[in-house]
Amino acid sequence: MSRTLIEKLGEGLPSGAILTDPDITASYAHDMASFCAAGTPAVVALPRTVEQVQHVMRTATALRVPVVPQGARTGLSGAANAGDGCVVLSLTKMDRILEINPVDRIAVVEPGVVNATLSRAVAEHGLYYPPDPSSWETCTIGGNIGTASGGLCCVKYGVTAEYVLGLDVVLADGRLLTTGRRTAKGVAGYDLTRLFVGSEGSLGVVVKATLALKPEPRQQLVLAAEFASTAAACDAVCEIMRGGHVPSLLELMDRTTVRAVNELAHMGLPETTEALLLAAFDTPEPAADLAAVGALCEAAGATQVVPAEDAAESELLLQARRLSLTALEAVKGTTMIDDVCVNRSRLGEFIEGVARIAQDLGLSIGVVAHAGDGNTHPTVCFDAADEDEAKRARESFERIMALGLELGGTITGEHGVGLLKKDWLAKEAGPVSLELQQGIKAVFDPLGILNPGKVF
Amino acid sequence: MSRTLIEKLGEGLPSGAILTDPDITASYAHDMASFCAAGTPAVVALPRTVEQVQHVMRTATALRVPVVPQGARTGLSGAANAGDGCVVLSLTKMDRILEINPVDRIAVVEPGVVNATLSRAVAEHGLYYPPDPSSWETCTIGGNIGTASGGLCCVKYGVTAEYVLGLDVVLADGRLLTTGRRTAKGVAGYDLTRLFVGSEGSLGVVVKATLALKPEPRQQLVLAAEFASTAAACDAVCEIMRGGHVPSLLELMDRTTVRAVNELAHMGLPETTEALLLAAFDTPEPAADLAAVGALCEAAGATQVVPAEDAAESELLLQARRLSLTALEAVKGTTMIDDVCVNRSRLGEFIEGVARIAQDLGLSIGVVAHAGDGNTHPTVCFDAADEDEAKRARESFERIMALGLELGGTITGEHGVGLLKKDWLAKEAGPVSLELQQGIKAVFDPLGILNPGKVF
Ligand SMILES: Cc1cc2nc3c(=O)[nH]c(=O)nc-3n(C[C@H](O)[C@H](O)[C@H](O)COP(=O)(O)OP(=O)(O)OC[C@H]3O[C@@H](n4cnc5c(N)ncnc54)[C@H](O)[C@@H]3O)c2cc1C
Ligand SMILES: Cc1cc2nc3c(=O)[nH]c(=O)nc-3n(C[C@H](O)[C@H](O)[C@H](O)COP(=O)(O)OP(=O)(O)OC[C@H]3O[C@@H](n4cnc5c(N)ncnc54)[C@H](O)[C@@H]3O)c2cc1C
Repeated sequence: MSRTLIEKLGEGLPSGAILTDPDITASYAHDMASFCAAGTPAVVALPRTVEQVQHVMRTATALRVPVVPQGARTGLSGAANAGDGCVVLSLTKMDRILEINPVDRIAVVEPGVVNATLSRAVAEHGLYYPPDPSSWETCTIGGNIGTASGGLCCVKYGVTAEYVLGLDVVLADGRLLTTGRRTAKGVAGYDLTRLFVGSEGSLGVVVKATLALKPEPRQQLVLAAEFASTAAACDAVCEIMRGGHVPSLLELMDRTTVRAVNELAHMGLPETTEALLLAAFDTPEPAADLAAVGALCEAAGATQVVPAEDAAESELLLQARRLSLTALEAVKGTTMIDDVCVNRSRLGEFIEGVARIAQDLGLSIGVVAHAGDGNTHPTVCFDAADEDEAKRARESFERIMALGLELGGTITGEHGVGLLKKDWLAKEAGPVSLELQQGIKAVFDPLGILNPGKVF
Repeated sequence: MSRTLIEKLGEGLPSGAILTDPDITASYAHDMASFCAAGTPAVVALPRTVEQVQHVMRTATALRVPVVPQGARTGLSGAANAGDGCVVLSLTKMDRILEINPVDRIAVVEPGVVNATLSRAVAEHGLYYPPDPSSWETCTIGGNIGTASGGLCCVKYGVTAEYVLGLDVVLADGRLLTTGRRTAKGVAGYDLTRLFVGSEGSLGVVVKATLALKPEPRQQLVLAAEFASTAAACDAVCEIMRGGHVPSLLELMDRTTVRAVNELAHMGLPETTEALLLAAFDTPEPAADLAAVGALCEAAGATQVVPAEDAAESELLLQARRLSLTALEAVKGTTMIDDVCVNRSRLGEFIEGVARIAQDLGLSIGVVAHAGDGNTHPTVCFDAADEDEAKRARESFERIMALGLELGGTITGEHGVGLLKKDWLAKEAGPVSLELQQGIKAVFDPLGILNPGKVF
């Protein structure tokens, strides 16, 4: 079977585009999620053209072999994990930027383009591709579309879904579908484009994307505010948003995270800090905005407010946020990153709840949050070799999901469902929604060969 | 049959919510589109609750009777037109604003809320619901969602799709589906919310919507620029966008429109004007932005540039734009409004092409455009009683659609497909897309009772 598969793939792919050495293919088995099973791929295909992708899908359909589309495998939900005997379809070699148009403010790209590469390329034209997952130096546009990625600037600029105008998609049976448009607006027929955004490789393989761009914003100026309680920091978030401010970034780090960063980088953040809030503005008068927001932070009980005076100081303040994940990883060797999004008015309650769960289970859980969006990343620090602790980490995941739903939130703000949250998707969406989603899946992929077992 | 239908409807609806008088039901037969057939509804249902909507859909499913959801029937594609013997399901009585939340920046509304009512209500909380179709004083949020409406401010703030976070939808069989979220972000499962936006009542009946809001922007300041050719005005549009400007409005009126407005309102616009461009900014320093954009207009050949000094002057300048449609209607009694969107870099070519079509067919066609988005409304002025002219008007529609596609545009930027553009959707989307869209339709509405014959 695997022999036929590889032979057939070879009929439409150059030999360098087919990897079969188990040592190598094993390295394509999984993404960056903890606690997600991964199988052994039969083969990894690395096509460079749309026709090659079509050949892979036609072959897979003919042989009824599952296909797992992959970008850079930085995903955090197991959505890119291989299943046993599958074809891993890595889009990383399709990495050309096909067009950047400053008048129409669009870019046309292949799926393997790395987010940061695109961002830099459009910046040379005075343009801006906002979605900025923290993994931007490695993750791909195809993966960003697959997971509907967010990032730090989304509080002002929105998420990936807002920037995808049209797609070329190879369907499960190898046919090529074009969705959407290259115009600024367009409402012809059902919005298939947005249906693909966040579909985690389960409906088709994105081979080209037309993306909307914005003009490059002004350099942002950052303010850091320290609080003696998370509740006070969350109050500040609410007051900032109630006050009509539009920060280009509004991030929160809890005590566990602040201490981990201090430990790692000796940043000299006061150990008494229970929460650190970072706000930024890329407005024409950012200093005035920082002053207004600083005052709101003080009114909410900030113990210290530090506005940056220039870009260099702003960068320094952002360092702490950038180091968060690495620092939390250093605590115990392994992390499991949650992704619950609640209304910002419930943010305080949620973070308190997470602290209670951490205490109950004797775990260290740092919370980093895109606070302006209510999108939190409770990050469980544990020692994977300590079975009991790993079990408690897994347990905390369940409790954190339940807490998120209880507070009217969603189980995933930006990382997707993948393998990790399938059961929780069923709970959040309910049976009617799930039935319809499965119906849609069957329309696009009647044989169920595209990323089977993911999402639901 | 019609007897049974009305009896069964009466089992779940109060008598005042069922209209059967043919003189009255006839007034619900069609929306505002020209050239679209409309049938005679069997009955008009005006539910006030979700349960009542569910009862209508269960009854319709049991009896296999088609249902046409309706908002204010301001649609311009026949999407809300009745079919013979159908139930018109008017959502206009479900018009409560259920929640406005300034911290979470969301509103929760019933579908019959009028766009302007919502806009005013949220403004009282310092908030802003951007999508602003010119019909905003009458059209409903349900209709806006049904058609994925745009408007004047979309060049800066985006369209309806960007503002719908979650929906409650009654399905064809009467079941209630909840989609999406009330949080700022969320990617759990397929994006069913966006699938409903623009689905023209063919997938389900929206009974509740959670909408994202923005903080109320500053008062905008408007500039008017007159050009001796459309090409020069379109060059100015391109230069404004290339220059990285973010106008809150960028509208174009061609000569035919300018003259019609002069005729109607004696605004004293120079008769030599071939194109009038209106640009607005709601930035902290709008005067500076207007100056920059004014200079670009002059460089592109503007014959006169008039920046408003205050809100009152701005309003005056916008009057001309607001009167466009009424003025064009006055020309010959009837208009047919197209809705082609092209890339703004092709706007000049498109408008020139429309002028050629008008000349070829001996028609008067005014072009009003959301120029910043490349979204044009060629508006054919004709005398409906003049059979030959009406035929030529119909003919111009086909040619304008073809021209839009030829230039890489879409047949509809914001008005939808409805009855009017079904054949053209097939051309734009192609067979693969159409097959998938029909597959989705069958998943949501296997009996085909929801707004049959619309979209495709
Ligand atoms: C350190 C770190 C920080 C992160 N920060 C963020 C963050 O701030 N915000 C955020 O949203 N995420 C973040 N992530 C998660 C992850 O980076 C994103 O989900 C990213 O979009 C995944 O891109 P990828 O190229 O790695 O895709 P993969 O992980 O390879 O794939 C992701 C999904 O997309 C599908 N897919 C990939 N390419 C295609 C294609 N061409 N066609 C169809 N389906 C495809 C896959 O099948 C899979 O389901 C972070 C991850 C790490 C490790
Ligand atoms: C003078 C004028 C100016 C206009 N300007 C603009 C403009 O600038 N931009 C723009 O985009 N449009 C514009 N339009 C078109 C029209 O106003 C919009 O399409 C509007 O969104 C329609 O809203 P409505 O309530 O009238 O819906 P209707 O016309 O009643 O219905 C529109 C569609 O939505 C469906 N629908 C309605 N309610 C529901 C519901 N609750 N659930 C499911 N489906 C539903 C209907 O079945 C139909 O398919 C204009 C129209 C006029 C007459």
